[in-house]
Amino acid sequence: MEQKEALAKLAELQKKLYAYQAADSALYLDGTTVAPKDTAEGRGVALGILAGERHKLFSAPEVGRLLDFLWERKDELDQLRCRQVEELRRSYAQLTRIPADEYMEYAVLTNEASDVWHRAKERDDFELFRPVLEKLVAFNVKFAGYYDSTKLPYDALLNEYERGVDMAYLDQFFSTLRGRIVPLLRAVMEKEQPDDSFLRRRYPAESQRKFSDYLMEVLGLDRAHCGIGETEHPYTLEFNNKDVRITTHYHEEDVGNSMYSVIHEGGHAKYELGICDEVQYTCLAGGVSMGVHESQSRFYENLIGRSLPFIRAIFPKMKEFFPEQLSDVTAEQFYRAVNKVQPSLIRTEADELTYCLHVMVRYEIEKQLIGGTLAVADVPAAWNRLYKEYLGIEVPDDRSGCLQDSHWSGGAFGYFPSYALGSAYGAQMLKNMEGEMDVWGPVSRGDLSGVSGWLGEKVHQFGGLLEPADVVKNACGEFDPAVFAEYLEKKYADLYGL
Amino acid sequence: MEQKEALAKLAELQKKLYAYQAADSALYLDGTTVAPKDTAEGRGVALGILAGERHKLFSAPEVGRLLDFLWERKDELDQLRCRQVEELRRSYAQLTRIPADEYMEYAVLTNEASDVWHRAKERDDFELFRPVLEKLVAFNVKFAGYYDSTKLPYDALLNEYERGVDMAYLDQFFSTLRGRIVPLLRAVMEKEQPDDSFLRRRYPAESQRKFSDYLMEVLGLDRAHCGIGETEHPYTLEFNNKDVRITTHYHEEDVGNSMYSVIHEGGHAKYELGICDEVQYTCLAGGVSMGVHESQSRFYENLIGRSLPFIRAIFPKMKEFFPEQLSDVTAEQFYRAVNKVQPSLIRTEADELTYCLHVMVRYEIEKQLIGGTLAVADVPAAWNRLYKEYLGIEVPDDRSGCLQDSHWSGGAFGYFPSYALGSAYGAQMLKNMEGEMDVWGPVSRGDLSGVSGWLGEKVHQFGGLLEPADVVKNACGEFDPAVFAEYLEKKYADLYGL
Repeated sequence: MEQKEALAKLAELQKKLYAYQAADSALYLDGTTVAPKDTAEGRGVALGILAGERHKLFSAPEVGRLLDFLWERKDELDQLRCRQVEELRRSYAQLTRIPADEYMEYAVLTNEASDVWHRAKERDDFELFRPVLEKLVAFNVKFAGYYDSTKLPYDALLNEYERGVDMAYLDQFFSTLRGRIVPLLRAVMEKEQPDDSFLRRRYPAESQRKFSDYLMEVLGLDRAHCGIGETEHPYTLEFNNKDVRITTHYHEEDVGNSMYSVIHEGGHAKYELGICDEVQYTCLAGGVSMGVHESQSRFYENLIGRSLPFIRAIFPKMKEFFPEQLSDVTAEQFYRAVNKVQPSLIRTEADELTYCLHVMVRYEIEKQLIGGTLAVADVPAAWNRLYKEYLGIEVPDDRSGCLQDSHWSGGAFGYFPSYALGSAYGAQMLKNMEGEMDVWGPVSRGDLSGVSGWLGEKVHQFGGLLEPADVVKNACGEFDPAVFAEYLEKKYADLYGL
Repeated sequence: MEQKEALAKLAELQKKLYAYQAADSALYLDGTTVAPKDTAEGRGVALGILAGERHKLFSAPEVGRLLDFLWERKDELDQLRCRQVEELRRSYAQLTRIPADEYMEYAVLTNEASDVWHRAKERDDFELFRPVLEKLVAFNVKFAGYYDSTKLPYDALLNEYERGVDMAYLDQFFSTLRGRIVPLLRAVMEKEQPDDSFLRRRYPAESQRKFSDYLMEVLGLDRAHCGIGETEHPYTLEFNNKDVRITTHYHEEDVGNSMYSVIHEGGHAKYELGICDEVQYTCLAGGVSMGVHESQSRFYENLIGRSLPFIRAIFPKMKEFFPEQLSDVTAEQFYRAVNKVQPSLIRTEADELTYCLHVMVRYEIEKQLIGGTLAVADVPAAWNRLYKEYLGIEVPDDRSGCLQDSHWSGGAFGYFPSYALGSAYGAQMLKNMEGEMDVWGPVSRGDLSGVSGWLGEKVHQFGGLLEPADVVKNACGEFDPAVFAEYLEKKYADLYGL
């Protein structure tokens, strides 16, 4: 094989993987947005087969030989190709270490688990979900060994979502945070709460749709390349850097819900749309890690979207969409309302301060589940105990407790910490940004181009060209969770007059 | 290879083909409904690769060996498997007779041609489309030889869309029709025309959307398995018999447009949803031919949807959706308006009587184009001459002339006759149905269950289990185009007092 031929095969392989991903995405997008309700079966058949075809394509021995051939000549490759081969070798090694029958069995299990979890949550019946969760945990422990047998199982899983992150790192990260968030929360809870009742007036979906269009415009999302749909749970889906979709869900009695979904998912979309053309249709396309992705979504959602300058900037226009609902509300009141701190049960609805505590509960439980020190049957009790300990609240039922999130039913263990890491990365990016340019002047005029430009240069453009840790370093410098804690302390001191 | 193993492989092959088709459909559906406007490129990349993968899968020599192995044992197979093998052998032979490089070249060409045609139509510039059309014709002539070298090229192409149909058959069919439609049209045009101006009052899209929901309910389309979307050109797309989508386009100044699109596409959907479970995820899933499909869509659209009993049944409800627009209109007036005969330029907007004349123009031109007796450069002149001859009207420009339809740009030559055949099949089905049951009593009460039940039993359930000609025979008896002519003569004699 000549190098030129090998490189052509490398490009072809990646384009094929892209095509299978696009097919999967289109079916998923359809299934969650417009598909009629009783059509999951046929879609499941197609998705299962396409996953199998993709697996067969990528796990073929000749792919291994191709990657080895190129890796031996890596000094002759440009950086782009070199990174592609490195990434593909990693994925190939991981995929081929999982026996094909276990891989298929697991695919069937996660497909079934999603259904079972939905029903269990609906009926508030953890026992229904328990056997499936046991199997999922067992599979993940086994797979962790395939991923990296030199690591403890949970470390191996964490590494899948945020390369370079492990329990030692996270224990310290979370303990720093907890040590500062818990007393801060206690102080806040002793203060008078702002009135946020006006958020729950009736905001018609039709007006909210128009408001979403406006928010996307403020975020600088090009509608020729970024669509918006409606799903039960909001998400962002990227086909490529010219085609990204976000979704939201309109709650007519809660204007902040979709508003911050759109800004959050919009942040993910900014990232994907900002990735350079050079990596498109390769394994380096797409955001580099979950943590970095969440740093962008939560940057727009919280650091910008829940800031007073931003709210002041958009509030006059917002009043045009909701003239009656907001007639007696000022930008400052709105700002205080959307930053109201309230320990609560549901992570996705949590305020910026308590959010990380929700993540910590899941982290502690996953650590023990995968580590083998917590039986699946004991998850509800552990969950409820930790909510009491971290957030000071009683969990009334498993539906709003350990059954609330879909992640485990999808087989994702080790994913949750990315949410907290992303928040912390973001705060440090903001600090650096403030050191380099005037952030708040333009934002207070509704102009996010400077912010987006900075993030585009430091984060977005690279896609998978850099390692996650290098992207973080590039935008944050040496990562220090204290910066996030300081940000929170300052913000809530101002808000609550501490 | 054991027979059991071979049958398992047969099922697996067909499920894979289904999965690729589902992927293609999901991407197409997305691209034509909700995808942001500048996202075609990445979707094109994915579609091209998936088409290549599907081609590679199906044209592999082991597939040929598998099919041969089973065909040699066809006496031991049940009818279902036997038909599958027969159909797959036919497709396999056809596919493998096309050299892979020509197949891929053609895929690239049709992809490009669609773009060029769009631009040419927009600019009314046939010369822009001409070179592409020349290539498309040349490819189709060559492919016709691959399909069946014993047939004349256009006969081979016709056979692809409606097996068993050829020029000898169609020449007689069209000449019978033309001989009766042209004088009928002449007689009609001498009569006073009904007032149809109220169809062009303003009918807001939002009310039309609700009206569509109502129409789908009347058609008995189960919304848990049948969705509706909005596209520039209406179509029906089936994933399987539990998941079908129709689309429509709302013209606010033309209430009949979307109304009859919904009923037409609804007819296609009824067919797909009525196909038996046994053939799902096999090559026998889906309607058996274009002609039979059109017989169903045009049955609901014209024979039922444009009948007085049906309009009387739905009109009270229709007035609720459009109270102001229809306040001074009776069901009878509406019936006459949507059946107004008016020779016109655009096939898709043609009335039921002149529709077949539009099809005949395309048939004559295709016959000569593929037969080599008409140069592509002479298509506009031939087109305009035939519109004058058959419909008595002048074609002002190619945009509303030979550039109006997308079919040729997609490489479809031999497809158009299916539309006329379907209309004629439908008329004969109605005659038989009337002989066996009370059609119009229930329809006049808005109850289509009897009609749908009859079609379900005689046509829908079989999918590809029977040959197209056998389905036609099953529902029509011996096909006789005179039945369609008689239907038209009777209908328009009543309408126009001939």
